[in-house]
Order: sequence, then structure tokens, then C-alpha cells
Amino acid sequence: MKETPLFRGRIFSVAREEHALPDGRRSDYEIVRHPGGAAVLPLLSDDRIVLLHQFRPAIGESLWEIPAGRLDEGEAPEACAIRELEEEAGYRAECLEKIAEIYPAVGYCDELIHLFVARNLTQVPYAREHDEYIETVSLPLSEAIAMVQRGEIRDAKTQLALLMVEKQNPGA
Amino acid sequence: MKETPLFRGRIFSVAREEHALPDGRRSDYEIVRHPGGAAVLPLLSDDRIVLLHQFRPAIGESLWEIPAGRLDEGEAPEACAIRELEEEAGYRAECLEKIAEIYPAVGYCDELIHLFVARNLTQVPYAREHDEYIETVSLPLSEAIAMVQRGEIRDAKTQLALLMVEKQNPGA
Repeated sequence: MKETPLFRGRIFSVAREEHALPDGRRSDYEIVRHPGGAAVLPLLSDDRIVLLHQFRPAIGESLWEIPAGRLDEGEAPEACAIRELEEEAGYRAECLEKIAEIYPAVGYCDELIHLFVARNLTQVPYAREHDEYIETVSLPLSEAIAMVQRGEIRDAKTQLALLMVEKQNPGA
Repeated sequence: MKETPLFRGRIFSVAREEHALPDGRRSDYEIVRHPGGAAVLPLLSDDRIVLLHQFRPAIGESLWEIPAGRLDEGEAPEACAIRELEEEAGYRAECLEKIAEIYPAVGYCDELIHLFVARNLTQVPYAREHDEYIETVSLPLSEAIAMVQRGEIRDAKTQLALLMVEKQNPGA
């Protein structure tokens, strides 16, 4: 495999790769290289969950999301999820349960998101980054599932976390 | 909003954008610009579904996925899904049902994937692109859901399509 760097940014880089396909043919691909991330659904004791309403410059609007962030260099996914849960949502979790690994954009990007659910939460002060603009709400899991079904939650990791946790807690 | 082009590729481009946040502060973002895509879960008459096992250079391995592709310029999402269903899976659908819109990577990419389910399918010859290396299998929807839960299906659009269609067809 031959790799040519094309762009280096703060969050991701872009490279051109020449790949041998399984049948021996060769082809060129432009690939976004991303360090990976972690995301966590905060599940409160009364089957309520916590969502963030967050302005996303890439999309140009505010979206409903679970807390998530990019892995720092050498950071374990669970540590990243615990950090983002505290920074973005203001909740501390003693331990997390891994519910999925997701590749969000397999056609052109190597990002892998580690998806967790957090229970037994305690509230702590926020510690948001300067360019994050976030509102936090709590709502019943069933209402969040209805928002997915009505198309009001469109962030992939959030849709998935909600549907996977609902499968663990049917009727919640 | 001020936008500076940083990279132009075949499938996506990268730009630096200066955004005014909702509170008036300004911040810089590097953003992957993507034309958007469509993906479709082929649901056969006996509650079996069709999955592709496809080598993905960005990931470096073969993944289980539903048929999907990038929108051609001016192409309607439904037309794209019908085209990819035929090219990649070898099935023709008369009509599709939209089940979701998903933003796979809201932190840095504007891609929107239009997600469909296709029923009443008829088999047609494949018409794959030269650099696609794909195996096609059909399996029960329930078995595909179990693969999601065991972490064997890790492509976000595929995980989501399966969970959303299972919610429409409980016990299938």
C-alpha cells in the first residue's frame, strides 16, 4: 500500500492510498484519517436520558446529540467518554457499558466511534470548551426514541445509542 | 461566514470556515464537504434481508453493509438508492420507503445519508463499478440484528437501517 499525504488539519488529515484489492487489482482512494472518538448515552435512574442540543458548524444548525468527543492521543475510549460526559453534560459516571463500535463513514473515513451507556450518574459542574455552545435536556428514553422515528434526531451515533439501549430496556 | 478551500478531491473537499456561534463569538472549523448519499435495506418477502460484504480501503478490511452510494450531481436520493440497489445487490425495487436521514459525522463533515427500505424486489444482473469488490448474502432480519448486537456489523448506516426496520417489524 502506497500512501501520499494530501492535507493535514487540526482534527483530521487526508491521504491518497493505492490499495491492492482482494483480487489483486490496484486502485486509488482519498481517505480522511481521524483519531477516532467515543460517545456515551447518559441513562438516569428513572429511564430518562440526557441529550445535548449543540450548534454544529459543519451542518449549519443545532442538532440533538449524546455527549461525544475525539480521542486524545493515547486516550482509552472509556476515559474519553467519561471525560466528555462530565465536560459536556455535567454528569460523572463510575463505570460505562460498551454497547457498540461504529464506523460512521466507511466509504472515505477511518474514524471508529466507541459507543457506551452510562448509569448511576451524579451531577457535577460543566467544563465546556470555549467554542462549544450546548444546551442540555433530560427526557424519557421513550420520547427520545419517538424523536428518532419522527426524524428529529439525525445524528447517527445518537440514533444508534438510543435504539440499542431501548433494545436492552424494552418498554422503558 | 468566511470559507477558505483547503483541498479538493474526487469524492469530498475540505474547507476552513469561520463561523459566528449563536452567542456571537467566532471560531474556525475544518470541514469535509460531501455531496451526500443514499443507502437502502433490501427486505425480501420472507423477512430475509440482503447484505454486502465489501472491502473498504479506508478501514483496511471487509465490512457488512447495505447497498449505498454517493449522490450524483442533481440526483434525487431515492433514485440513487434504487441505482445502488441494482448495481451493488442485483435487485430492482419499484418504490422505496424512507426510514431516516442520518448525519454520520456531525463534528467535521456535512454528509447527509438518506436511508430507505426496499420491498417487493426482483433480481436483476449486477452492474458493479470496476473497483468494487463485493459478496452478497441474504439472511434473516433477526440474524442480522443479532450480528449488530454481537458487534459483527459495525457500519453505522447498516446498524441503523436494521434497528429501524426491526422496530417496524417486531419479531420478524
